[in-house]
Amino acid sequence: MSFGTAEYKKRILKTKERMAAEGIEVLLITDPANMNYLSGYDGWSFYVHQMLIIIIDEEQPIWIGRGQDANGAKVTTWLYHENIIPYPDDYVQSETKHPMDFVADILKQIGQQNRFIGVEMENYYFTAKCYEQLKKGLPNASFRDASLLVNWVRIIKSETEIEYMKRAAKIVEKTMAAGIELVNEGVRECDVAAKIFHTQITGTDEFGGDYPAIMPLLPSGERTSTPHLTWTDQRYKSGELVILELAGCYKRYHSPLARTVHIGQPSEKIKALSEVVVEGLNACLDMIKPGIACEEIEEAWRKSIEKSGIIKESRLGYSMGLNYPPDWGEHTASIRKGDKTILQPNMTFHLIPGIWLDQYGFEASESFRVTENGCETFAELPRDLYIKEASLTKI
Amino acid sequence: MSFGTAEYKKRILKTKERMAAEGIEVLLITDPANMNYLSGYDGWSFYVHQMLIIIIDEEQPIWIGRGQDANGAKVTTWLYHENIIPYPDDYVQSETKHPMDFVADILKQIGQQNRFIGVEMENYYFTAKCYEQLKKGLPNASFRDASLLVNWVRIIKSETEIEYMKRAAKIVEKTMAAGIELVNEGVRECDVAAKIFHTQITGTDEFGGDYPAIMPLLPSGERTSTPHLTWTDQRYKSGELVILELAGCYKRYHSPLARTVHIGQPSEKIKALSEVVVEGLNACLDMIKPGIACEEIEEAWRKSIEKSGIIKESRLGYSMGLNYPPDWGEHTASIRKGDKTILQPNMTFHLIPGIWLDQYGFEASESFRVTENGCETFAELPRDLYIKEASLTKI
Repeated sequence: MSFGTAEYKKRILKTKERMAAEGIEVLLITDPANMNYLSGYDGWSFYVHQMLIIIIDEEQPIWIGRGQDANGAKVTTWLYHENIIPYPDDYVQSETKHPMDFVADILKQIGQQNRFIGVEMENYYFTAKCYEQLKKGLPNASFRDASLLVNWVRIIKSETEIEYMKRAAKIVEKTMAAGIELVNEGVRECDVAAKIFHTQITGTDEFGGDYPAIMPLLPSGERTSTPHLTWTDQRYKSGELVILELAGCYKRYHSPLARTVHIGQPSEKIKALSEVVVEGLNACLDMIKPGIACEEIEEAWRKSIEKSGIIKESRLGYSMGLNYPPDWGEHTASIRKGDKTILQPNMTFHLIPGIWLDQYGFEASESFRVTENGCETFAELPRDLYIKEASLTKI
Repeated sequence: MSFGTAEYKKRILKTKERMAAEGIEVLLITDPANMNYLSGYDGWSFYVHQMLIIIIDEEQPIWIGRGQDANGAKVTTWLYHENIIPYPDDYVQSETKHPMDFVADILKQIGQQNRFIGVEMENYYFTAKCYEQLKKGLPNASFRDASLLVNWVRIIKSETEIEYMKRAAKIVEKTMAAGIELVNEGVRECDVAAKIFHTQITGTDEFGGDYPAIMPLLPSGERTSTPHLTWTDQRYKSGELVILELAGCYKRYHSPLARTVHIGQPSEKIKALSEVVVEGLNACLDMIKPGIACEEIEEAWRKSIEKSGIIKESRLGYSMGLNYPPDWGEHTASIRKGDKTILQPNMTFHLIPGIWLDQYGFEASESFRVTENGCETFAELPRDLYIKEASLTKI
């Protein structure tokens, strides 16, 4: 397990406090990060339905999952083995049976069928069909939307969690440096991606890396006009921009980072764009401290870039830490206009002011934690546009 | 784009035939593999809501997604740019707005609000909340469950798709060999995982690799009692079993493969288990041909292992090909009791007879395509238990 039992129990307690406040007696957790956060469960089994059940007046959660994953739950969680309940394999991707029928049966067997039941309505792993089947199976239950209930418990990190994110940052520093070093004219994009993966997973001599919740994003050339493209097997050309957005990951905790490379001498326009973004990023990092609201960071950014005429409509960043694919973000606080979340020590964010124009884009980001009187970035790596000299591109 | 426009149009046509048969006039596609299959769209943007809309009496699909991903849709799809509709960023992970409100507004604007609308109820990327918001926004529409409608169109592969899976198989052969070679006493699990990733993504000199929809599964020791654990940064010990389940991936098409390694001489029990599984696997591959039902393969397997006393309750395999995380399986045909899908040429499966006992497990698998009169595996690699001699383990 990644944490001591005491830390898991503290998390359960905080979750129950929120449940009580929202009138939820039984919480059905399907978000794999929330399952991991409360039980330690860790496996690539979220492609089938699985669940952690928190009952407000029971000490231990219940894990329900596919039969063959039950041993995984025994190996990775702090739960009593009798609280690990496997469902038969013919519930898997079946046209006639649904795992939520099984869940409803279990809830009836343990007398929870008439209670206020919280479900994560807005979670990848709680499909529309899941909700329909649960309502059918538990007609006397009252369902409440408990999306993000546990995510909000996760927003302030413990010292151990911060330590894991620092380790992830050590990994991302190495990985980003290796990626930037390899990008060059004539190199295949996939070979840069391969080098990135290798460094992410090898980690350091002291500790290894985990898979990040988002694969390396590696757009080049005109593909930098959009942030979420991965790589091809084409070779980089002189004159191209290359964006690298990737994370180090340690025991499912992330430190994401983005940097941009130009192969050959960049145009004045590109240089100017990079300077505006980096200046704005620095302006944000300078003013972040406990007590301010997320939207104030966005205001500082907007003020900083104002004179350039550049407008950024998309959000500037988000709370992140523990997660599974498809996202390392926590879906709680966002750094954007209207977000009034007040910063507190050990909140952790990815601040990513990317600008994507019609023909090209630029990104430079930092992951940071809020400290007692300011903030500190997890990684340390120069923030400027990285320029690969044309004269150095031929080996 | 990975395919010519003609192939995409053929796929749209087949989809519309199924829509007509099921009385669906407007199909809302949220499965990223289905979006890719019909439009070419490829980006790691499925962590926010996005959609492809097929209207039965309109020639072209409509893509709806986040503003910053619209350029990605322009770069990767065959759609007219006016059919690419971005939603503003304040819909992203917001507590007050939902992207399905935007989708409902668009459907009203183009006069589709009173029609029979198909939604993928059982898809990771169509949450319970998505369905609630759509119903609210389109009170006069009739919703039908269109889960797997496009997945069933995908089940028979074109020649180009088969070629892509063969390329993925070239990658998985190299990757599995590299992984097996590196596993040994004293080596860290993460370093084997890193080598696997590097080989998966580098691919070959001719073509590079894409990220697989499932990360390498690498349980060792007692963790082999369950199939879906990834890796740690611990060092392998002599006497341990190590299972490697992983895929090569080319342009989002997969060829998965599983093999098992023993460090040092295995016990008779482990050897016997491996022989039973490999014999059963071979028995299946020998009898597979067009015209038989999926459940008949399972029957052949059951008959083969009967004398050993081993019972396998979980399914033996599944249709697979194109996909995105969290699963490379297509969720249509399964190789198991009760599945009456009739095999046809160019259906493609991952046949994975794993056995997970209380203390250890064994896996050996093959990905195959159904041919005109039998089947052929995509990869070629001996199926036996790989034994690392203790004398070779020290370098």
